[in-house]
This record gives sequence, C-alpha cells and structure tokens, in this order.
Amino acid sequence: MKDVSKSAGQTIRDVALIVGGGPGISSSCARLFAHNGMRVAVAARDPDKSVLQKLEQTHGVRRYSCDASEPAAVDLLFQNVVRDLGAPTLVVHNIDGRVAGIFRKGIAEADPSMALDTLRNSAFSAFLVGQQAARLMRENERNANGAKGTIIFTNASAALKGFPLSGAFAMACHAKSGLAQSMARELMPEGIHVANVPIDAAIGWTQEDGTRAHRLAGTTVDDNMADPDYIAQTYLQLHRQHRSTWAFEIVLRPWVEKW
Amino acid sequence: MKDVSKSAGQTIRDVALIVGGGPGISSSCARLFAHNGMRVAVAARDPDKSVLQKLEQTHGVRRYSCDASEPAAVDLLFQNVVRDLGAPTLVVHNIDGRVAGIFRKGIAEADPSMALDTLRNSAFSAFLVGQQAARLMRENERNANGAKGTIIFTNASAALKGFPLSGAFAMACHAKSGLAQSMARELMPEGIHVANVPIDAAIGWTQEDGTRAHRLAGTTVDDNMADPDYIAQTYLQLHRQHRSTWAFEIVLRPWVEKW
Amino acid sequence: MKDVSKSAGQTIRDVALIVGGGPGISSSCARLFAHNGMRVAVAARDPDKSVLQKLEQTHGVRRYSCDASEPAAVDLLFQNVVRDLGAPTLVVHNIDGRVAGIFRKGIAEADPSMALDTLRNSAFSAFLVGQQAARLMRENERNANGAKGTIIFTNASAALKGFPLSGAFAMACHAKSGLAQSMARELMPEGIHVANVPIDAAIGWTQEDGTRAHRLAGTTVDDNMADPDYIAQTYLQLHRQHRSTWAFEIVLRPWVEKW
Amino acid sequence: MKDVSKSAGQTIRDVALIVGGGPGISSSCARLFAHNGMRVAVAARDPDKSVLQKLEQTHGVRRYSCDASEPAAVDLLFQNVVRDLGAPTLVVHNIDGRVAGIFRKGIAEADPSMALDTLRNSAFSAFLVGQQAARLMRENERNANGAKGTIIFTNASAALKGFPLSGAFAMACHAKSGLAQSMARELMPEGIHVANVPIDAAIGWTQEDGTRAHRLAGTTVDDNMADPDYIAQTYLQLHRQHRSTWAFEIVLRPWVEKW
Repeated sequence: MKDVSKSAGQTIRDVALIVGGGPGISSSCARLFAHNGMRVAVAARDPDKSVLQKLEQTHGVRRYSCDASEPAAVDLLFQNVVRDLGAPTLVVHNIDGRVAGIFRKGIAEADPSMALDTLRNSAFSAFLVGQQAARLMRENERNANGAKGTIIFTNASAALKGFPLSGAFAMACHAKSGLAQSMARELMPEGIHVANVPIDAAIGWTQEDGTRAHRLAGTTVDDNMADPDYIAQTYLQLHRQHRSTWAFEIVLRPWVEKW
Repeated sequence: MKDVSKSAGQTIRDVALIVGGGPGISSSCARLFAHNGMRVAVAARDPDKSVLQKLEQTHGVRRYSCDASEPAAVDLLFQNVVRDLGAPTLVVHNIDGRVAGIFRKGIAEADPSMALDTLRNSAFSAFLVGQQAARLMRENERNANGAKGTIIFTNASAALKGFPLSGAFAMACHAKSGLAQSMARELMPEGIHVANVPIDAAIGWTQEDGTRAHRLAGTTVDDNMADPDYIAQTYLQLHRQHRSTWAFEIVLRPWVEKW
Repeated sequence: MKDVSKSAGQTIRDVALIVGGGPGISSSCARLFAHNGMRVAVAARDPDKSVLQKLEQTHGVRRYSCDASEPAAVDLLFQNVVRDLGAPTLVVHNIDGRVAGIFRKGIAEADPSMALDTLRNSAFSAFLVGQQAARLMRENERNANGAKGTIIFTNASAALKGFPLSGAFAMACHAKSGLAQSMARELMPEGIHVANVPIDAAIGWTQEDGTRAHRLAGTTVDDNMADPDYIAQTYLQLHRQHRSTWAFEIVLRPWVEKW
Repeated sequence: MKDVSKSAGQTIRDVALIVGGGPGISSSCARLFAHNGMRVAVAARDPDKSVLQKLEQTHGVRRYSCDASEPAAVDLLFQNVVRDLGAPTLVVHNIDGRVAGIFRKGIAEADPSMALDTLRNSAFSAFLVGQQAARLMRENERNANGAKGTIIFTNASAALKGFPLSGAFAMACHAKSGLAQSMARELMPEGIHVANVPIDAAIGWTQEDGTRAHRLAGTTVDDNMADPDYIAQTYLQLHRQHRSTWAFEIVLRPWVEKW
C-alpha cells in the first residue's frame, strides 16, 4: 500500500508565490507553506505592512511590491521571484478586488470607473498572474504526483451567485471562475493543476498566536466564520493531489452558513 | 380565458434600443421589433455600415454612433435615444467583444492588453448599457404584463463553460452572466425583466430576403446553425412574458449541437 | 422576412397529451392547446374529477385514467391516445409526485416507503411517459419547424437546489432533470425537442373565468405566484420553437421571488 | 500556529462504515481508514467475495451482508455495526447502481424494470444509508474538528451531465446529488458533514501490492484513470476538515480527462 499521506512534493523543493497579502488567507498560507518546507514569496501593493514584515521575521517569507493589475509589474514580480527563490511550483492569486466606493451600491448608482477597477483588480490581475505562472511552470520538472505546478485562485460566493447591489463584484468573481475553468482545461493536460476556491463565508483571520480576529473590530469570530488556517490546509492538499484525481473547484463554507 | 397570445406591449408604444449592430442578431431583432410596431434604435461603432443603412431605409430604424465601452458615450447614446424616440422599454446588449488577435491563443501567449480590451468591450460595456437602461426604466409606467422594461444580454457558450485557448473570452462571458444575475435579482422586484441568453452555437445570418449567410464565405448555413430570426423571436417572447412567470436565462442551441 | 409569429404547427394537426391532471398547469395547458387547434388528451389517476369533466365539456378534452408509475398503464394510455386522437406531437409530464406524509420531514424521520413512492410517482413516471413519447414521435413526420414532436417535463425548484427537510423530493426532482438532459442529448438530433421547466414558485391556479385560486383556501393569489396560463404559454412557445434554436431548460419564477 | 496536519479524529476512535464493497474505492478506503486507526466495516450483497475476505485478513475489516436497497436490511446493518464496533463516525455510500441490461440502451429500448432497479440500487439505497447515518451521528460527541460525523456519497459524471443512452443512470446519479444537497443543508448545522464526490473518470483499481488493474481485462491502467487510493485520501481529508471550512462537493478527474 502506497503512503498517500507522504508529501510527494518533498522530492523537489517547492517555491510558493502568494499574490495579494494581508492578515487572512495570505498569512495563513505563508505560514503553512513555510512550515512545510517551501520557500515562500508574498507580493502586495504595500509590502511594508506590519503583518508582512512579521511573516518575514518569523517564517523567512520574501516580500515583493507589485500592483498585480499592471502587466509590466507582474512580469517583473515573477522575474524577481525566479531570481531570488527559483521558479514557482505553487502560485496563489489571493486578491479580492472589491472597491469600497461601490460596495452595496445599486446598478444605477455604481460609479463606472470603480466597476472597471474591480474588473482590473480581480479578474485581469488573475489573468496576468495565471499567465506568468503558466509560462514558467511549463518548464518545471514533474514532481512525484505528476505535477509541474499548481495555480490556485481564491474566489468568493459572488462567483457562484450574482447578488443584488453588487454587479461589479459579481462580474469580477464570475470572470475569475471563467478564467480558471479555461486555464484548467488548457493546462491540466500539460501537468499544471489549476483550481478555483470560492469561499462562501465571511473570513475571520487566524493570527500567529492562534487567536481569531476580524477586520470589523468588535466582531466575534468563531467557527461560524471560515478559518484561513484551514483554507490554507485545503490549498496545500490541492497542491499535493496526485494528477490521477485532480479537483478543479472546491467551495468552502462554515457548517452554519446558509446557501 | 385570457388571450395570452395578445401582446400586452401594444397598449404602450415600445421603444427598443439594440447596442451592437451587425448582420446577425441585431438586424434580425431590428426587423422583428419594427414589424411589431416598436420604435427601434441601433447603436454601433460604425453606424454607417451598409447593413444598418438598409435597416433605416426598409424599417425606419434610427442609427447611433457609440463606443459602448466608454461611459460618456453610453450616457450620450441614451440621452439621444430618449430625445429622439422616448425612453426605451426594451434594451438588447448584443456585443460579443472578442478581440481577433487573441482568438485561440493559449494563456501563455495571449496579449494582456487584448485580454483587457475583451473585458472592456463585452462585460464593461454590458455594465454601462445595463446601468443606463436601469436608470431610465425605473421611471417607466408598467405595461399590461406588469413590466417597466426588459434588458436582454446576448451571451455565448463561453458563459457556460470556460474552453481552453480562450481565457479572456471565458472571463468576459462569465462576467456578463454574473452581471446579468446580479441585475436580475436587484431589478426584477422593481418590475424590470433582466435576461441572459447564451447562444450555444455558430450563428448563420438570416438576410432580408430570407436567405442564410455566414461571415466565413463559403460556409453552408442550414438549421445546424442558430437562425437569428428565431433568436429575435425568443427576445420578443421574453419582452412579452408576464411578470408572474419571468425566465432569467434561456440557452439556445441548434438541434444537432453537441453539449 | 419570414413570419416567425405564424405557428408552424398549423400544417400538421397537433395531438397533445398532458399526463397529470389538476386545476393548475394541466388545465391551463389543456385550454390553451385546444384554443390553438390541437386535439388534447389529459391522463390522471382520477379522470372523473370535476375540473377535468369541465375541460371535456368546454374544450373537448379527452380524459384517460392512468397510474403513470405503472409501465403497463402508461403503455396502454399511449395506445389509447393513438387510437382515439392519433400519435402525440406534444407530451407534457406534469406530475409533481410529492407524498404528503413526508412533506417537511427531516431525513431521520422520513418514511422510506414514502421516499420510494416519491421517486416512482415523479421520476419513474417521467421515464415511462418519456419512453412512450420517444417511441411514437420517432415515427412522426417533421413539421414546418423541423420537429417530430416536443416532450416537456414540468419540474420544481427542488430540481435546482436540494432544500433541507425534503430529501425525497430533492431526489425526485433532480432525477427528472437528469432524465430530461439525457433524453435531450439523445433525441434532439433525431428531431424531438425535449425541455425541462422548473417552476421556482408557488402556483396560483387560473380558473376558467380568469380568477385566481390556490389549493390552500384563503391564500391571496396575485402575480406574486406563477400564473399557469403563462406557464402554458411558455410550453406552447417551446413547442413552436424552430429547431435551429431550441431551449432545453427554462426556469420560470415570479418577479418578486427570492432566488 | 495550530498544527493543521494533525488528525483531529485521533482523540475519538473513528468507526467507518463503507456500504458497497469491491476492489476499487471501497477497498482503497478500507485499507486507508484502517491504516489511520479506524475500526472499519464493509457491507456488500456478497460479503464473501475474495477481495473482502482479504481485507479482513490483512486489515481487520469487518464484513456484513446487506442489500442496501431494502429498508429492513439497512436498519439491521447499522444495528450490527453499532453492536460490533460502535456508532459510525464516517459512512461512505459507494454503490454505483448501474444495471448491466440497460447500459448504453436508448430511452425507447430501455427496460422499465431495470430503470426502476437503477433508482433503487443507487438513489434509494443512498437515502436509506444516509438516514441511518443521520440518526446515529446526531447522538455522537463532537470531535476536535467540531464534527459529529461525516457522510460521503460517491457519485459519477452522470451526476453532472445527463449523457445520451443512459437515462436511468442519469436519473439515479442526479437523484443522489439532490439527496446529498438536501442532507447537507439539513445536517451541517447539526455538526454532520455531508459530501458528494462525483468521480469524472474511469477508475482503475489499485491492488494491495500497489499495481493497477481494471475490470475490463487487458485495459492498460495508468494515471489517465482515477486511482482509488487517492480518492480514499480525499475522503479522509473531507472527514478531517474543520467545520469552519467544509466542502460539500468535490469532483475528481484525471489530468487528461475531457470535460
């Protein structure tokens, strides 16, 4: 009997790049990936925010500055990561892209330029990041699971259902799903695992010390909210799946969530 | 027994605006809508193409110049239509948005600026057109079917499935579906019917004289390809549906299509 | 320009068979089909209920006794309809199949024999009716729309989403959708139009005199509930669709319905 | 940082029941679950087949005789498992239910009694097994992941798409999905994890010695076919998911599969 619990990735040193960096999924991924022996890079518009500095200090995570909606910036990011850490074997696109100014605005009231920014921040940056990842991973060797690499798109419930008062966000999340599907059908037969992971829930951060928090101060965080440490665990499992049984889409939601 | 075959729209003079103008669905819609007593406007980047001039001559269709990916241009278009014909009661967004240069290109080879143009041409223009339609229709009176207006988005099979070698088009079509869903949930309870119509087929034009044609010269067009005269008929039926039984999405495909 | 409003069905005398007979969709269909020149048959477990007797008197509808979950009974029904009216060109399976005893019961409390009855009443009877319809329609001539016949399955929102406390009904409605899809892919290329129509709403009957009613006495019926006269209209439109643009699934819901 | 790789299930001794027993997924699950410290039971119509006897000898798996389409037999099975091993914390319904006699038969030719048997074998047995599991798990204590138990339904690609020439199988697989969804919405808020896992592939068995095989002798098995050892791994991961991030549905397919 083969030992399916053994990480096949251990034969090749993994290089993980997380695009989009904050205290939630990105931080949980960075910690878990580093803990599992990967070299880890995180890219953010502001790489100097304290939560990322902390990741560098505690887990040796490399920080990069990048506006992921700019083609040249994404190109440069991947060049720098290859130079510093080697070609990525795991890339996570973890940008939500919501623009605060049109949040909960009706279609008639939403500012068009903010709608376009939402598309650029989310779907277009996913295109740029996915493109660079695909270019590099094609040249990777296969690991013991038969994979040249894994590309994961974090997504939201708006990818599953277009809610009222959020037309721009529904566009962006649906677009990201469409891109992920197209890339999966194109790249899986080349040995690159592509996955779309809509999180159908509010996310409560898990901090370094294990306590939970939420961006809205005063919100009680419990297991009624998605715990990003477990989201990161699902990402790691996706990366380690054998190519005979790849999952393309996994929707994660807390036990009490209505759907 | 009520006469469900009678057009409830006949009590109010319909004003139809078709955004995107070519020899296929737009022309078929323009002819059918005019034939059913509507005032009809068609907007296109080049409103002087011969097929649109012909529609003006034979069916009194008004032509407008509009780059539908520009907020100011779409704003002006609706102002002009209101001034010339009155507030629209039926708006069809019929822009495919494909950019020839990345057609059938792999994700690694696709030009990012063309990917962004695809999003702007298709999804973002749908947002702009839907927004103006929603603003105006809210002020309309209800017709005999209980509707203040109908907004129809023509879509493609890439809205249902992300195909390989077409990541940008998959993004754009999925985005349009997400927008349509969000608008439907928001606007239907206000009496505005929103519909998404993915055409899962190649489309063979139906010309004025009833003969069929295709943009690829020499292609034999038969009922193996979607006939836009019948697509237009479905759009008219959607517009005339009573609000007790609205359809949000109708996928149309020829009898022999694989799916 | 071809006249798409003209019924292509008029060149061949349509024979419609509605399986499942009550005061809602079945009665509305029977009246509309008869009004449009079809010979109409309705089959029910109890064909002597007053609403069906009335349909016979006012619209010449033929009544048949049939337990549609019994293979031999369905076989005999179709034989009798062919003998009396000719081979059907339009068959509507309009049986909900819910068993009152397990309605809103949790999975742990639901009586297994009632769950099996739900499957038999709904999905299995749909299989039997669809099978007989397919056998006969294959021998039909094509009408002006290119169709040998139309098979429509009325379905419910439980086909779209498995709700809690209704596992058996979710099974049955999903099964009916799966059957309809398989039949569509198999029979459409033979010229038989197969459609699945989930009604995502409570249905308020429309009576002969145009007033609305509901099986729960005292319920106010308005256009917040699906009007079966308009459901019947959609069925007629599906039957008359040209085969270059067939719809497989149309979800109908009232304008105010949450989804 | 919490150790997400540690099995939370280790604090409570897991009891796994696999309903349906053959050389593929059932055997892989039995071996993996036993290897991870669970007490394992397998139920099959013929529990004396050599592959199950081997599982008993090598992994201490308990064998039970059960026709899972019979309410009384399923009731007795769960009683016996509780008596012998304790209340189950993980139940896998792994019955395909296909009836050979209607495999690849057209809707017009398929034997109705075989169609009903398909429904009974697959969907109805899933209902019976799910019902007993729900009754017992409600009384379980919560484990460290917050779960009282996990119910997993193995499903097929016919759950995602109704293929031609397989109406009965499409009904059964869709029905199983509908049941799983209904149960998930009902039971997850009670702390019971319900999952539906369509395998979109042919499955090549993995034998005790690690070699691959297929029920069609002479078929070459490679990672172009789903490896049930990895399917079992996904089931174990589902069982160990923390309830803050439960997945309901995971479709597994080999890297080269068309979809």
